[in-house]
Amino acid sequence: MELYNNYKKIDEKDIEFLKAIVGKDRICIGEDISEDFSHDELGGVKKMPEVLIEVLSTEEVSKIMKYAYENNIPVVARGSGTGLVGASVPIYGGIMINLSSMNKILELDEENLTLTVEPGVLLMEIGKFVEENDLFYPPDPGEKSATIGGNINTNAGGMRAVKYGVTRDYVRGLEVVMPDGTIMELGGKVVKNSSGYSLKDFICGSEGTLAIITKAILKLLPLPKKAISLLIPFEDLDKAIETVPKIIKAKSIPTSIEFMERDVILASEEFLGKKFPDNSADAYLLLTFDGNSKEEIEKNYDNVAEICLQNGAIDVLIADTDERKESIWSARGAFLEAIKASTTEMDECDVCVPRNKIAEFIKYTYKLQKEFNMRIKNFGHAGDGNLHIYILKDDLSEEDWNNKLKAIFNCMYNKAKELNGTVSGEHGIGFAKREYLFNLIGEDQKELMNRIKLAFDPKNILNPGKVCQ
Amino acid sequence: MELYNNYKKIDEKDIEFLKAIVGKDRICIGEDISEDFSHDELGGVKKMPEVLIEVLSTEEVSKIMKYAYENNIPVVARGSGTGLVGASVPIYGGIMINLSSMNKILELDEENLTLTVEPGVLLMEIGKFVEENDLFYPPDPGEKSATIGGNINTNAGGMRAVKYGVTRDYVRGLEVVMPDGTIMELGGKVVKNSSGYSLKDFICGSEGTLAIITKAILKLLPLPKKAISLLIPFEDLDKAIETVPKIIKAKSIPTSIEFMERDVILASEEFLGKKFPDNSADAYLLLTFDGNSKEEIEKNYDNVAEICLQNGAIDVLIADTDERKESIWSARGAFLEAIKASTTEMDECDVCVPRNKIAEFIKYTYKLQKEFNMRIKNFGHAGDGNLHIYILKDDLSEEDWNNKLKAIFNCMYNKAKELNGTVSGEHGIGFAKREYLFNLIGEDQKELMNRIKLAFDPKNILNPGKVCQ
Repeated sequence: MELYNNYKKIDEKDIEFLKAIVGKDRICIGEDISEDFSHDELGGVKKMPEVLIEVLSTEEVSKIMKYAYENNIPVVARGSGTGLVGASVPIYGGIMINLSSMNKILELDEENLTLTVEPGVLLMEIGKFVEENDLFYPPDPGEKSATIGGNINTNAGGMRAVKYGVTRDYVRGLEVVMPDGTIMELGGKVVKNSSGYSLKDFICGSEGTLAIITKAILKLLPLPKKAISLLIPFEDLDKAIETVPKIIKAKSIPTSIEFMERDVILASEEFLGKKFPDNSADAYLLLTFDGNSKEEIEKNYDNVAEICLQNGAIDVLIADTDERKESIWSARGAFLEAIKASTTEMDECDVCVPRNKIAEFIKYTYKLQKEFNMRIKNFGHAGDGNLHIYILKDDLSEEDWNNKLKAIFNCMYNKAKELNGTVSGEHGIGFAKREYLFNLIGEDQKELMNRIKLAFDPKNILNPGKVCQ
Repeated sequence: MELYNNYKKIDEKDIEFLKAIVGKDRICIGEDISEDFSHDELGGVKKMPEVLIEVLSTEEVSKIMKYAYENNIPVVARGSGTGLVGASVPIYGGIMINLSSMNKILELDEENLTLTVEPGVLLMEIGKFVEENDLFYPPDPGEKSATIGGNINTNAGGMRAVKYGVTRDYVRGLEVVMPDGTIMELGGKVVKNSSGYSLKDFICGSEGTLAIITKAILKLLPLPKKAISLLIPFEDLDKAIETVPKIIKAKSIPTSIEFMERDVILASEEFLGKKFPDNSADAYLLLTFDGNSKEEIEKNYDNVAEICLQNGAIDVLIADTDERKESIWSARGAFLEAIKASTTEMDECDVCVPRNKIAEFIKYTYKLQKEFNMRIKNFGHAGDGNLHIYILKDDLSEEDWNNKLKAIFNCMYNKAKELNGTVSGEHGIGFAKREYLFNLIGEDQKELMNRIKLAFDPKNILNPGKVCQ
């Protein structure tokens, strides 16, 4: 399959046409484009777009895509650029559409429990807005400054997936612009839909390769009235992690089950300059329970606390005050930044394995740590089997780093495959993880994905070279 | 796009080959095939397959598909045949694969809360099995003798969608056979997955046109310890229905909110020979609440009962004994059969509209009833906007029936479109509802769906002529 067309390079005439669409103030060319737009948060891949266009409406996006389609120019859509796999890097140059200014909350419909938003609204803004209205948008990825468009495109998960599921579960409808500029409405406010292939569900998680999301209708829930966190120290990580499938088996589903190790906590204390409520143990589980009354929650967590104590927990620390919860969750929120600040460079792996295989996977990373003589840090979502594993460069040379990193990634993704896990739980494939995806899914699935990509985008101009290419 | 190949007719040589795959006892040819296999429950369309093959394994399905693909023979997969839109009718003849005997529950994994099943397992068997293990499979369509394969293919919804969502939300992984015989594993036991396009979510709801499901990994929840139903009589249906968005707005989400009218209740009493707890009012809402304690549920329903009384409810009847619940829900379960028994022939429409538009849609069906001088019966899922509307033939001539039915369908689907609703909430498009889908989604989306269909099935041999064709 010949995927990469001989894309047209942007010239003066193109710029004139694009200026006619959005005006001259929202277009940036060549060296005037900030270097920020050449990369995401941790992709390790960089490339500048030829033109950067800030858009304000669906119609503008549609006109740009129509022109790009007719003229064979590659296009990448970008939100906050908080991705971790290079999905929004314009590796073929061309046009970058910046959707950050399409950031209006359009409608809260309390009778249908939906929120209609533009793609550039930040996750933290959605959280704040709905909570002020006593409502709840459950997906809760760590990176709160991501846009909702980016969250939908990676099918972001986050802490509360154990109980509430992932972003796709909360997308009721989408307005999208197709690669040829056609505007389509998919789904809507309806709760059930069995009316043809579910294009909406397919576009969720497609990392900007199939269509550009210009509006989303999100499903909301009533806001749980109370939430309590339990911080549970264990003698070692094995004991902590091995307790997780027992909690699930006991049929009390917490909202979230996170795991963390002492050295990550210490790094976070140093990074934030704030004490964590406890740092005496080697490993911790952090559980949250939510519900509508203290009694309801207590009944749930009593059972789980008992299971933890029976399985080697040293103590069960209850965080029911806002202050204590804040101190725990702000530390949890700073783990990524704290690890990043402790080294020269790092890369990450966010495999997801069945819940009862997490312990085995983490032990394997210890083995790799020794074998390759590198620092490897873990934390993540124990409740849903989604690990966040960071490999640190420290003082390695560029060459050693690249070689060792590749070897470690190969080992980890092969292990994930062996455990019936998957390459990415929530960060996506983008540019950086393609070969590991191909290894997992095989040639037939890769070819099928590419045929579908071309069904959406026959000229392969929308974010080419990503996911399955 | 030329979709319909010059399909090969089955000959002696084909039969010999197919017998070599499954043996001679599981193949039926020509007039030996029971007429049952020419239609589903209410499709109004009939066509016999040329060969009917009962399969027992994925490998058999794969071999049959490989042969059919190489020889350009159309294939339709079938479960219990309880569909309502002709999706499993082999309109181009060819091979029918009967999956009903692939009906084993393969594994209950309590640590990952998953159930692995073959596609022919019946919904009622899954319900029984998981409840015996104190677990819960939430999707709850009325037709309990449907297979899980059929449920996944229509993305079936049912009563509990208000709180728990639909079938797609509970499918973690699929094993499928592609049109060319390739076997693929999609998803798995993992809770989160952002690893390439979500083929699994796309195949859910694709009505057997993209691949044949040969295994499914379902997500389970802990079984709620208690459930209580409230039967709430209202003076008239308007008052009942108009209360629904107020319940949702009050942020107490019931498990289900069904509506029913007096004459449907009377029909069901007659059909079952059993009394309904109350038949004095014109209209009823039937609500269920579930949870882990009586107190938790009571807190929830007290609030909702109050809202109902403030909005014209005559009374609130609580069904907390098994006996009373059984009498209400067995009546609810018999509505379709009871209406069917009251007339000569009927057809149905299962539009889904935003929850706050149900009242408007139902009033519109009253108008049509008068205008066309036909009996039209409603019941359905008020909580999720998914209506079940039955148009009865009674003593109309065949010609009048066909003409009037078409005219009424046109009116209803146009109204659904006007209210931002969709053609089908849970029954699917199949063969019978295609033109209404095309009218709703327009030419661009139809063409896109067809391009995707051909990406899965380049020779268009798997269930051709359905959904978007």
